[in-house]
Amino acid sequence: MLLLRAVAGRRLPVPLPPLPRCRRCPRAGAASLAPGSSPGAGGRGRAAPVLAALLGLGAVLAYGERRRRVSGAAQAPPAPRYPLYTREEVGRHRSPADRIWVTHGTEVFDVTDFVELHPGGPDKILLAAGGALEPFWALYAVHHEPHVLELLREYKVGELSPEEVAAPAPATADPFSGDPPRHPGLRVNSQKPFNAEPPPELLAERFLTPNELFFTRNHLPVPAVDPESYQLRVEGPGGRELCLSLEELRTRFPKHEVTATLQCAGNRRAEMSRVRPVKGLEWDIGAISTARWGGARLRDVLLHAGFSEEREGEWHVCFEGLDTDVGGAPYGASIPYGKAVSAAGDVLLAYEMNGAELPRDHGFPLRAVVPGVVGARNVKWLRRVAVSPAESPSHWQRNDYKGFAPCVDWDTVDYSAAPAIQELPVQSAITHPRPGAVVPPGELTVKGYAWSGGGHGVVRVDVSLDGGRTWQVARLAGERQALGRAWAWTLWELQAPVAAAAAGGEELEIVCKAVDSSYNVQPDTVAPIWNLRGVLSNAWHRVRVSVRP
Amino acid sequence: MLLLRAVAGRRLPVPLPPLPRCRRCPRAGAASLAPGSSPGAGGRGRAAPVLAALLGLGAVLAYGERRRRVSGAAQAPPAPRYPLYTREEVGRHRSPADRIWVTHGTEVFDVTDFVELHPGGPDKILLAAGGALEPFWALYAVHHEPHVLELLREYKVGELSPEEVAAPAPATADPFSGDPPRHPGLRVNSQKPFNAEPPPELLAERFLTPNELFFTRNHLPVPAVDPESYQLRVEGPGGRELCLSLEELRTRFPKHEVTATLQCAGNRRAEMSRVRPVKGLEWDIGAISTARWGGARLRDVLLHAGFSEEREGEWHVCFEGLDTDVGGAPYGASIPYGKAVSAAGDVLLAYEMNGAELPRDHGFPLRAVVPGVVGARNVKWLRRVAVSPAESPSHWQRNDYKGFAPCVDWDTVDYSAAPAIQELPVQSAITHPRPGAVVPPGELTVKGYAWSGGGHGVVRVDVSLDGGRTWQVARLAGERQALGRAWAWTLWELQAPVAAAAAGGEELEIVCKAVDSSYNVQPDTVAPIWNLRGVLSNAWHRVRVSVRP
Repeated sequence: MLLLRAVAGRRLPVPLPPLPRCRRCPRAGAASLAPGSSPGAGGRGRAAPVLAALLGLGAVLAYGERRRRVSGAAQAPPAPRYPLYTREEVGRHRSPADRIWVTHGTEVFDVTDFVELHPGGPDKILLAAGGALEPFWALYAVHHEPHVLELLREYKVGELSPEEVAAPAPATADPFSGDPPRHPGLRVNSQKPFNAEPPPELLAERFLTPNELFFTRNHLPVPAVDPESYQLRVEGPGGRELCLSLEELRTRFPKHEVTATLQCAGNRRAEMSRVRPVKGLEWDIGAISTARWGGARLRDVLLHAGFSEEREGEWHVCFEGLDTDVGGAPYGASIPYGKAVSAAGDVLLAYEMNGAELPRDHGFPLRAVVPGVVGARNVKWLRRVAVSPAESPSHWQRNDYKGFAPCVDWDTVDYSAAPAIQELPVQSAITHPRPGAVVPPGELTVKGYAWSGGGHGVVRVDVSLDGGRTWQVARLAGERQALGRAWAWTLWELQAPVAAAAAGGEELEIVCKAVDSSYNVQPDTVAPIWNLRGVLSNAWHRVRVSVRP
Repeated sequence: MLLLRAVAGRRLPVPLPPLPRCRRCPRAGAASLAPGSSPGAGGRGRAAPVLAALLGLGAVLAYGERRRRVSGAAQAPPAPRYPLYTREEVGRHRSPADRIWVTHGTEVFDVTDFVELHPGGPDKILLAAGGALEPFWALYAVHHEPHVLELLREYKVGELSPEEVAAPAPATADPFSGDPPRHPGLRVNSQKPFNAEPPPELLAERFLTPNELFFTRNHLPVPAVDPESYQLRVEGPGGRELCLSLEELRTRFPKHEVTATLQCAGNRRAEMSRVRPVKGLEWDIGAISTARWGGARLRDVLLHAGFSEEREGEWHVCFEGLDTDVGGAPYGASIPYGKAVSAAGDVLLAYEMNGAELPRDHGFPLRAVVPGVVGARNVKWLRRVAVSPAESPSHWQRNDYKGFAPCVDWDTVDYSAAPAIQELPVQSAITHPRPGAVVPPGELTVKGYAWSGGGHGVVRVDVSLDGGRTWQVARLAGERQALGRAWAWTLWELQAPVAAAAAGGEELEIVCKAVDSSYNVQPDTVAPIWNLRGVLSNAWHRVRVSVRP
């Protein structure tokens, strides 16, 4: 509805004639047609932010089921007059210069002229450029109105080749061959192991991140777990031991729900590596996401297993995953016992994520969710929970995920000298506009997220349009959270006039910085917090844009 | 002993001839004698850091008792050949140019030539310049060796006038006339109400701050409380009410001891007001001190009064003091109920400070000690503790002690828009060397303190000698503290060579920044955290010194 309302009153674009099939008339030919058919759109040279807006609204349903339903309903009657294309050919059409193509079911559409008309904004529709619409439509229910598909048909230019229906067989020799399929919208930083973040355009569009777009940080191949035979082992000193099936975890302990943001220690590492090279994946601002988690409280399971409510000295709860390296060693990490057993700590053995069962990439069938604590301790595919006087012996607990001074290098680093990261420091980032964007003069909207570890809520976000010289206070949005248990992020927005003096192609340096409930703030610059592993990158976030003349 | 060992091998200075009495030969005359009698010391022009070093070591005892004992023992036989001086005349001799005089008992000494020989360092002995030694000697037991007084007698130049013994009668019309006597070493920022901080030279000399030097932040006159008739009222909804005498607080609840640092929200305000003027007392780096507190746990008293261990929604515990303004309104503040009732919160109704009963300036006979939380909530001279669904209605809770963005001024400030400060952000400062000091080339010692609110321990302090371009890691000292309950500060020290290139009168900008257990860090600069009340001033601390040629 929204989509149609927004388009009403504008000239509906005339469908383009079918283009010749790319296999016979290759890329250069297709491109040469583009300027003639739509010189306006093609000539602007800044239409990169377009496809994403078909995706900006609505409720989320599990991608897999939705995908089947939507593609079934969208099946158009065969139109033999359209040329046939492979997915690879469609994939070449991702910019106004090459024309922007998308698929839906077996149909191919050229939406170049629709991009600027997209009610959700041009940046969002562009996320699907060169590929299928369904994964994005599945996230934003507004697209399931029949009028949407009718409108889309106006832009039809072809059909997918029949042989495109069959998926390629996985290469079984590859330890990652059993990894699950992923959403095409994810920005992949590493394929094996799979590490990916949601696109910045969608990152802060929703308070709860859709499961399909939730950032994924895998250290090892995704294990294939049979939920029927799955058992969690809980153990500790004095011979206490307990094995729990998934069914027992679901039925013997009350289900507890917590909305919590998870953030990788390496979020925003890309900014740190621009100061000096660091070791680690080049995360942009998206190694952070928020979900409503459901599961048994770790506290309840520990008390059931006979452990005491009192903190047992400075003990730890160690987690082990079912994901293992080539030598069979599992991923592991630990958290302080006090956090694990405290009612206010809200630590879960989670089997649900945003109302659905855990996706395989996020720990199916069971993961630890440790609110307020670095992602690395939220161990996925849990196989063992052990109470211990020592921290987890895992590499990732002892020799990684720690912070060091900028003067420490790989020759001088002593991992025993720094504490394992648990609570994370206050953080924020600008999700809109994007670096390098050209913004119109007048009212500018700046949007982003802010979060802090340890249950500290965000109490203020300051935004500067002049590199940090002067500041304005952003409007905060998000759920009200209990004091000291503010586990979820805060989304924020600022509308500010771009002063006439700044117009005329001038560059703006937009900056944000957050303040948390302990009045901790982010540091001004990256270099003084630089560290060899590129973790804890929480300096002011800076985005340079230029103002359209 | 230490003092004598350090002096052995140096030429013992020859006692100076008695100077003519100042009353007849006024200040100019006294000054004119100085250069001739000791041209070397007088000509250096940088002896300001001298007297303080007589004070640098040893254990602390209550100043009042010690003072009486020491001055009794130190009474020298009458020496009628010495001239007589008033305290005011002695007070004019505070620098090498005017000669440095001190008193002990009724004797007057010129210690100008001893300053550089002082084993505790010249900066510390200089704190007593122009006044009495006893308040400082009382803090550092090493001075009670008889040899110390023998050595001092070598420098005797006069006696105090007999009329100096009688103290002036207080002006009873003044509401502050009942305030207690204070230690002369305190740096006074406001006399009425009394607000003072320890001198930076002594601030981080001890892990526990001597009671006499503990920073004092009074909002109103100090109430005079009779401990025999004193009653604390504890009340809340549902008509729960309880009155407790001091004796009952001491005997009916277990005594709990906590080492906690208190910090005023305005600590380091002077740096903020250099950016733009702010409203508030000009605290330097000393509105922070540490003590071992003893008392009943607030938790135990609340449970005894019938309140529940569970958090009662987002309730508050409100404190009221016996100190009142001219209209009779008491000082007040509140803390979240969860902090007050939690065993891990360690909140005390304290009647002891470093093993002694609370001094009057620090809340005699009972104060709240809320570890990890801003000083303003640690209400002194407690008369009432009330559990309430709302925060304290006090001005100091609702319309003060809150943080705002740099763009908020007195025309736009909305106190309801910001949360009351509770936990404070990570903090650190350099106590040695002092700004403007001239340091010798070679090995430089940098010392200071670091602390963070909310029980977050300090995990690292980075020090830069080049304004923040490069960093070194300081050595941390202090007591081991439980995870999440690190209520006390961490003292730190760095020995670093001052590079040859930097010598030759060149200026060094020394900088420190701390990292706490949540890996929060201090912001680089003051301007972006500037706020109209000048609170939460925790940017990197910077000290400029020059290197002696």
